[in-house]
Amino acid sequence: MRGIYKALWLNEDKFLEVIDQTKLPFEYETKVLRTTDEIVTAIKDMTVRGAGVIGSVAAFGIYTALREVKSYEELKQKAKLIRESRPTAVNLMWAVDKMMELLKDSNDLINDSLKFAIKLNDDEALESEKIAKYGCDIIEDILKTKNKTRINILTHCNAGWLAVIDEGTALAPIYEAKKRGIDVHVWVDETRPRNQGASLTAWELTQSEINHTIIADNTGGHLMQDGQVDMVITGADRVSASGDVANKIGTYLKALAAKDNDVPFYVAIPASTFDFDIIDGVKEIPIELRSEDEVKYIKGVDKNGDVQEVLITPKDSPAINYGFDVTPARLITGLITNKGICEANFDKIKEKFNL
Amino acid sequence: MRGIYKALWLNEDKFLEVIDQTKLPFEYETKVLRTTDEIVTAIKDMTVRGAGVIGSVAAFGIYTALREVKSYEELKQKAKLIRESRPTAVNLMWAVDKMMELLKDSNDLINDSLKFAIKLNDDEALESEKIAKYGCDIIEDILKTKNKTRINILTHCNAGWLAVIDEGTALAPIYEAKKRGIDVHVWVDETRPRNQGASLTAWELTQSEINHTIIADNTGGHLMQDGQVDMVITGADRVSASGDVANKIGTYLKALAAKDNDVPFYVAIPASTFDFDIIDGVKEIPIELRSEDEVKYIKGVDKNGDVQEVLITPKDSPAINYGFDVTPARLITGLITNKGICEANFDKIKEKFNL
Repeated sequence: MRGIYKALWLNEDKFLEVIDQTKLPFEYETKVLRTTDEIVTAIKDMTVRGAGVIGSVAAFGIYTALREVKSYEELKQKAKLIRESRPTAVNLMWAVDKMMELLKDSNDLINDSLKFAIKLNDDEALESEKIAKYGCDIIEDILKTKNKTRINILTHCNAGWLAVIDEGTALAPIYEAKKRGIDVHVWVDETRPRNQGASLTAWELTQSEINHTIIADNTGGHLMQDGQVDMVITGADRVSASGDVANKIGTYLKALAAKDNDVPFYVAIPASTFDFDIIDGVKEIPIELRSEDEVKYIKGVDKNGDVQEVLITPKDSPAINYGFDVTPARLITGLITNKGICEANFDKIKEKFNL
Repeated sequence: MRGIYKALWLNEDKFLEVIDQTKLPFEYETKVLRTTDEIVTAIKDMTVRGAGVIGSVAAFGIYTALREVKSYEELKQKAKLIRESRPTAVNLMWAVDKMMELLKDSNDLINDSLKFAIKLNDDEALESEKIAKYGCDIIEDILKTKNKTRINILTHCNAGWLAVIDEGTALAPIYEAKKRGIDVHVWVDETRPRNQGASLTAWELTQSEINHTIIADNTGGHLMQDGQVDMVITGADRVSASGDVANKIGTYLKALAAKDNDVPFYVAIPASTFDFDIIDGVKEIPIELRSEDEVKYIKGVDKNGDVQEVLITPKDSPAINYGFDVTPARLITGLITNKGICEANFDKIKEKFNL
């Protein structure tokens, strides 16, 4: 049993404590989540975000809820609130459903929920290790084929340890490459409008002293045309049974550019990111619509070192803010999963995951 | 002779006065450019920007230089400084070369340069009117074919009257549509890192009461998949003889998405944006590399109403800032030119422009 992860852990009173990701990269603060309401709010306002981490928080959320309610019946209401806190990432629903299933016949709800939540997170940490290894093997293959010593990897959004237990998904192979002594450089898409790349991925990579360069989301196409990108790795929030990938808005555009320039495009996911009930991801995966204020306002540090939020558009111009898009399987070179590399198509996925 | 344009004009002392575009949309300020150095700085720091407008400023820049130097020989040095102030947009070089050619045999440099600069700008204004008309005819065709009454047009960066004499290029057909009573709605790419969309295009459209919605640059692909975009119109900074289009970084990604979703993708340009010396735009058009600070810092209005510049990345993370990318002709439905619609390929361009 590990029970301590990088983006979240249990504090001395056995409440869930998380890094407040809305404050990074400028301030490192943690938040203790004591109630179901606080869990739900933290997921909605993106204090915690990333497909894996919101699944993890949801699992511990069930345990948290059980400090407020006593019966399984009462728990169902709380579970529903957590389950519906964000619509696109399937790990959230998966984690809640899994916890509820495991607890159905429990006579010791509190202790069992804690045990199951820890087990679920430990399993995800092991999956992350496997993704790291399989993904890094691809990096080594690409370097060998190209007869190069430095790999340039482009990533979109944040799918590192802030997003997924324990080393992440998309960044896990990069951390592994660093461990194996590979000269790795990461192109970090800033990832508007929430800037998870410029704020979270760049911060994570700085912590681990991994070479990286922040770019505007517009830049990846030119870099690929210019031969400056050897591969793309992203995470995902939901993957359909046929391999269509819902991920942070803008992923689809990078996949198109990768295809157009013969750059390998990989998506790193644990098995829990599959939604086997959905076949056509473009048509069926629900896309979260978030507040226009996330487009119109941005936070940063002013010249006095204070964090300020500023308006960056005309005040009366409306904005719209879709959180995700869906990349069709035809644009994806492969899925880096805990069970190894899998082609993004229905038959291969079915075979590898015993559907 | 018009001599008064929307983004620039001659003041009472016959010095060039321009709207300071680095201040919009928060402050409307103008700047008088009295010397060659001030002209060059205004182009470099993007006080004035947009392919057409920097060409116009360059033309008046030659006239401005002639208030400092007396001979054609001396003028050559000043012309070189202006010509090299930015590398990608060809209108700049075109305007300087045209002015120098016209002035070669002049006996009255000052007065002739003023006359020629005004003539050049008046001609561009007429070209803009034609682009408006031809582009709007396409809008009407699309509405008719789709049997719709509202057109949704996506644009990237700013190619309106702040960018090009007099109504712009990409926005000219939109202004014309409004005049013709068409229900037009514009998706405005915010256009990182300089945010010319969110700050300039949104501001222009607000002034003209044209319906629009600001989106992160990442969003266009999803909107196209979802059937929410009827056409794309952008401007260009340089178009090769074979129809490859250099435009604001990120244009290429939108063109890929348009192609993938059968959305017509048009590029609106006056003839002066062609560079007939270049065939393969992707390989040959020089791409400007600008300061990383444009990615790392952003300007906006704080809660007290003051304009602040804030840092939006980890302080020590490097960034890179390519200003443009090149969209291959194969992704372009057509060029909207002052001579009518032209297919983006060598033979059709050659035919239409009598090469």
